[in-house]
Amino acid sequence: MSGYGKQFDEYYQAVEAALPGYLPQGEVLQKTVQEAMAYSLLGGGKRIRAVLCLAFCRLCGGTVEEAMPFACALEMVHAYSLIHDDLPCMDDDDLRRGKPSCHIRYGEAIAVLAGDGLLTLGFETMLNQYYTGKYPPQRVVKAAAELAQAIGTGGMIGGQVIDIQHENKPITGDELNILHSLKTGALIRASARIGCIIAGAPDDVIAKADQYAKDLGLAFQITDDLLDITSTEEALGKPIDSDQENGKTTYATLYGLERSRQIVRELVLDADLAIKGSVLDDPFLYQMADRLAQRDR
Amino acid sequence: MSGYGKQFDEYYQAVEAALPGYLPQGEVLQKTVQEAMAYSLLGGGKRIRAVLCLAFCRLCGGTVEEAMPFACALEMVHAYSLIHDDLPCMDDDDLRRGKPSCHIRYGEAIAVLAGDGLLTLGFETMLNQYYTGKYPPQRVVKAAAELAQAIGTGGMIGGQVIDIQHENKPITGDELNILHSLKTGALIRASARIGCIIAGAPDDVIAKADQYAKDLGLAFQITDDLLDITSTEEALGKPIDSDQENGKTTYATLYGLERSRQIVRELVLDADLAIKGSVLDDPFLYQMADRLAQRDR
Repeated sequence: MSGYGKQFDEYYQAVEAALPGYLPQGEVLQKTVQEAMAYSLLGGGKRIRAVLCLAFCRLCGGTVEEAMPFACALEMVHAYSLIHDDLPCMDDDDLRRGKPSCHIRYGEAIAVLAGDGLLTLGFETMLNQYYTGKYPPQRVVKAAAELAQAIGTGGMIGGQVIDIQHENKPITGDELNILHSLKTGALIRASARIGCIIAGAPDDVIAKADQYAKDLGLAFQITDDLLDITSTEEALGKPIDSDQENGKTTYATLYGLERSRQIVRELVLDADLAIKGSVLDDPFLYQMADRLAQRDR
Repeated sequence: MSGYGKQFDEYYQAVEAALPGYLPQGEVLQKTVQEAMAYSLLGGGKRIRAVLCLAFCRLCGGTVEEAMPFACALEMVHAYSLIHDDLPCMDDDDLRRGKPSCHIRYGEAIAVLAGDGLLTLGFETMLNQYYTGKYPPQRVVKAAAELAQAIGTGGMIGGQVIDIQHENKPITGDELNILHSLKTGALIRASARIGCIIAGAPDDVIAKADQYAKDLGLAFQITDDLLDITSTEEALGKPIDSDQENGKTTYATLYGLERSRQIVRELVLDADLAIKGSVLDDPFLYQMADRLAQRDR
């Protein structure tokens, strides 16, 4: 395993070990919803948001331990967004990470409530750190405020609204950029920013982390679109413009495969440039951008 | 209008005037969800949670202005809970306050997202007060943490889970108490507590406010059950045990009308006792408990 792979795995394992401890337990009458929350939160995932939070906290002089509750809270919020996105009234997805999605396994009512529960638990997990006495209150409140700003109608929820309203409708390149920057970009940026905030980083460092995460998030999303096509091509022999025929506009349908790959390369270079020469100038971040953004090779 | 009525109306009007200003505006692509949020948040309601927050802040030496963003945030969270409770997969209610419920008016997808949006905006509205520089950060973080604890699976969401899992199933008196204390009680208690926290009240005062609100919340809920029956009796001539025939257990079906009214009177006395002789000893609170809890007379 490469140095990068080893480091990522270390972060990943630490997150997997910590996550269950933040889940509510033992309240008999509410057992079902708590099971559904655990099912979706602990059901796999790359933990990119948590890893970004841990990595940025460490690079800014903090520790993995300090950042961990905030990293886990970010994964809770991500899990909530997936549960609600999968609902029949939204994307109507029966499968998530190869398993029945939450509403298939637990029914729609419990799935809605499990999503609500994970969103609330994300805030609670961050805010409760105040009572540990280990954090300056300013850092806790700023981290939670970053989260709230990133996932409201000006962030993640807004992105989901744009997404469902453009099903089977044309979308321009500018609108697609806004959609991605809100639906996935905002929480990824918040993950990096919160890591910095917990370590007490100054504003100029937070701005660099933000730029890096902004580029990484968009590159990641475009690559997801490309993987959708290239894996379809290989697996099903479909033409690369099948998404377009299905009414879904992506970077690939708008710009084509080659130009999209070029955009991804440019974003990775821009991400690298953002951290170069700063305290964030670290091989782990360079390689993370490179690996996550170029998974279709 | 009585002194109480005038004071309540003053708080109520201040909340109605302030609420629209906290709603997100002007993001064209997300317009629909923002409209749905406004539709549900500004669509009436007694504003009891907001009024409790304002009243307790003032009695603890704070101002209405200081408490206002927190009071409005509590109403956002209450509105979110109503939107999600009304969904077809939950209580499937087409009407709310005499108007089409959010999912009837905007569709299910937008209703789920409007609920998510109001929940998130509740936290954002509280947490953003940090940036005004007008509050000690500790108070902001404690207020938001109170909110999170009150509305998670150990609070409001837990109550809704118990509620939907006991439809057409028997429920014991103890379980009904837990259901009410979680589903409506937790947020009402948090409203009073947060008012005190914003004013910087000491823990013993917060504990008195909490006891008052706990009694008030349960008395309010029992009276709601009674109103359901008495208004049905008068309007439709149904027997008082119609709820029982419909499979819904309430205080009235468990204890009967007279004993339930006795319990309400005892709760109001207990609420009064909690604040007697403290800084919270104020005619407004005595009358609020009395009026809200005895609406069926």
